[in-house]
Amino acid sequence: MRQSKLFTKTLKDAPKDEVSKNAQFLIRAGFIHKEMAGVYSLMPLGLRVVNKIRKIVSEEMEQLGSEEIIMSTLQSKEIWEKTDRWDDKKVDVWFKSQLKNGNEVGFGWSHEEPIVEMMKSFLTSYTNFPKFVHQFQNKLRNEVRAKSGIIRCREFVMKDMYAFCATDEQNMDFYNKSIDAYLKVFKRVGLGDITYVTSASGGFFTDKFSHEFQTICESGEDIIYVNKEKNIAVNKEIYNKETLEKMDMRMEDFEEKKAAEVGNIFNFGTGKCEQMALYFNDKDGIKKPVYLSSYGIGITRLMGVLVEVYNDEKGMIWPESVAPFQVHLISLCKDGDAKKADEIYENLVKKGIEVLYDDRNTRAGEKFADSDLIGIPKRIVVSTKTLEKNSVEVKMRNEEKSELVEIEKL
Amino acid sequence: MRQSKLFTKTLKDAPKDEVSKNAQFLIRAGFIHKEMAGVYSLMPLGLRVVNKIRKIVSEEMEQLGSEEIIMSTLQSKEIWEKTDRWDDKKVDVWFKSQLKNGNEVGFGWSHEEPIVEMMKSFLTSYTNFPKFVHQFQNKLRNEVRAKSGIIRCREFVMKDMYAFCATDEQNMDFYNKSIDAYLKVFKRVGLGDITYVTSASGGFFTDKFSHEFQTICESGEDIIYVNKEKNIAVNKEIYNKETLEKMDMRMEDFEEKKAAEVGNIFNFGTGKCEQMALYFNDKDGIKKPVYLSSYGIGITRLMGVLVEVYNDEKGMIWPESVAPFQVHLISLCKDGDAKKADEIYENLVKKGIEVLYDDRNTRAGEKFADSDLIGIPKRIVVSTKTLEKNSVEVKMRNEEKSELVEIEKL
Repeated sequence: MRQSKLFTKTLKDAPKDEVSKNAQFLIRAGFIHKEMAGVYSLMPLGLRVVNKIRKIVSEEMEQLGSEEIIMSTLQSKEIWEKTDRWDDKKVDVWFKSQLKNGNEVGFGWSHEEPIVEMMKSFLTSYTNFPKFVHQFQNKLRNEVRAKSGIIRCREFVMKDMYAFCATDEQNMDFYNKSIDAYLKVFKRVGLGDITYVTSASGGFFTDKFSHEFQTICESGEDIIYVNKEKNIAVNKEIYNKETLEKMDMRMEDFEEKKAAEVGNIFNFGTGKCEQMALYFNDKDGIKKPVYLSSYGIGITRLMGVLVEVYNDEKGMIWPESVAPFQVHLISLCKDGDAKKADEIYENLVKKGIEVLYDDRNTRAGEKFADSDLIGIPKRIVVSTKTLEKNSVEVKMRNEEKSELVEIEKL
Repeated sequence: MRQSKLFTKTLKDAPKDEVSKNAQFLIRAGFIHKEMAGVYSLMPLGLRVVNKIRKIVSEEMEQLGSEEIIMSTLQSKEIWEKTDRWDDKKVDVWFKSQLKNGNEVGFGWSHEEPIVEMMKSFLTSYTNFPKFVHQFQNKLRNEVRAKSGIIRCREFVMKDMYAFCATDEQNMDFYNKSIDAYLKVFKRVGLGDITYVTSASGGFFTDKFSHEFQTICESGEDIIYVNKEKNIAVNKEIYNKETLEKMDMRMEDFEEKKAAEVGNIFNFGTGKCEQMALYFNDKDGIKKPVYLSSYGIGITRLMGVLVEVYNDEKGMIWPESVAPFQVHLISLCKDGDAKKADEIYENLVKKGIEVLYDDRNTRAGEKFADSDLIGIPKRIVVSTKTLEKNSVEVKMRNEEKSELVEIEKL
């Protein structure tokens, strides 16, 4: 894409109340636009990154055999009352409003209850199981304090997946496969080495551990305890002598780290479906409750964590798999030479390479600064000087030195 | 996809309060799930149709040079007060709620104001123009009575596009190109022959006509007047002697038709940007207001209109370009022959054909009824009988007769 056509511009300053690096860089580079505290719109560059993350997550979920749906934002009071989660004292992040007839409606901060309710139309016999569904949905949460930029928002894109199973075995089988799929996702987006499956307490319905996926990150909101050698981690809740002994570990085996939660998985057993009355008939015609587990990844949050992990004082440094473009082609050509830069751009595009082409009539210094801020992994500079040698100058965003490469070899 | 894996099932009955054909068929076939009056979730088959419509619209908008973004659902009171459209007496479809600090927030029923506000960060000089942006966004509207199924919802997907221009010429040039692009969209989704650009009154900011795109449809909520010969139409508002005389036409030249609005375009001139204070500096450094026009297509509504137009007593009949799958492969094979059906399925998939494969262990009558209800354009039946002739039976959903085709020729 020609940068002259892009409607966003880089900005000198981020809004003063933005303290997080991710919001500062993403706003200044024109990836997101701040609507209000904790609410951001996605601009073309930001949407490209989100779509790349989505695609990776989507592919891994489909590999698991999950089907994609989209649930509604508007939610009915009656459904959430079944599990006593309509009450603002029980769930403190509801946004609520009223229909014209005075009936209350909620705005989806989660979709566990509506999805279980919906499945009553479709899951009735043991032959229907297992079934897996996922969605990329815009969640709305009335957070007291929205901080950390797009890492904790009042509005954000989440991938939530649900497994509906007839037996504990079916459920645990999918649970374990999902852990592998999640680790693949984090590896593919470039966070593999610093993302841990952490054990957390099991919650209301089960005495087993639940699991979180935590990325080590100085600006993270969580504290985790990591054993690098054994490649395991636990969260703060269960970092105590008694619990660790059950795992055959000691507190001294772990190192304290700041981390950001990028995913979580949760096994409800049959608890949630019993509350909601989602039953099926087994082989012998006996009514049994459905096993449920849920699997979340914060898609826009992941973009924020990527910025927090990969940056320097000049700007962001995107891993190739999620970069808005693969190549930032910068033309410093004047007049007649500009045509040559156009040609290089068109040839790269023809080869299927995603190129942001800085064809703007701007100073070189500004182009380089913008390029560093935007953080596309590979920068290619074409100028009258490089053209004299029939070459372009190639530099990786995360390296210092550049090299001349002949245009033909590009 | 194997139908045995699909979690949705066809249902005998739609909810009793659904009177529209589109909701009845879409719910019964498992394309959508009703959450409450006027609120539907998209199931896998429905999401596939919506994604196909989106892709067509997306391609045509990109052809126009428009960039994709996504604005937030949460909206700030201050922005809408600038045009006096926060007041419930002025705009009666707002959903509103409160942040924890007591500040009111709204939920996006339109994005005209926030997009104009946002552009203040980016459009400052005459060299920045023209710029075009669009989004596929989930609108929330507090309709008094949600009826007509997914044609008039409280929550729906809309493509809205905005043109920001420095001059009236730039603006009108894009306006006219967009009319062509919209007509291409309606042609590609299969509604070309029955969709008209209708002239409507110009509204607040301009004395020219605005334009709607209306699809002739018995269950439509609008009345339009069509002159088939000249291929033009007008809406009810301007169907009077005086206005038609200006167009050199008479009332008798038009035929009354019921129609559903599938798109609309609107020229704000400089009115909206003056209200919102979006100005730029022209060549001579003089401050001037920006020209704005907006362009909407209801994506989920379009799915509903397609069902209303293309159906028979047995179910839906999808045009190929937006069908959830291209082929419905139905196996009536038993035991050993089932393998042969699997092979045909896998070969079709390998060729890049989108196939829904009914591999379920169900009666033939049920399979045919489901297939007619779901409405995939081409049905291929493979049975022991057809296999004896090394053939399959091919039938188009909108035709009566079927023909035997040799498997090799498939």
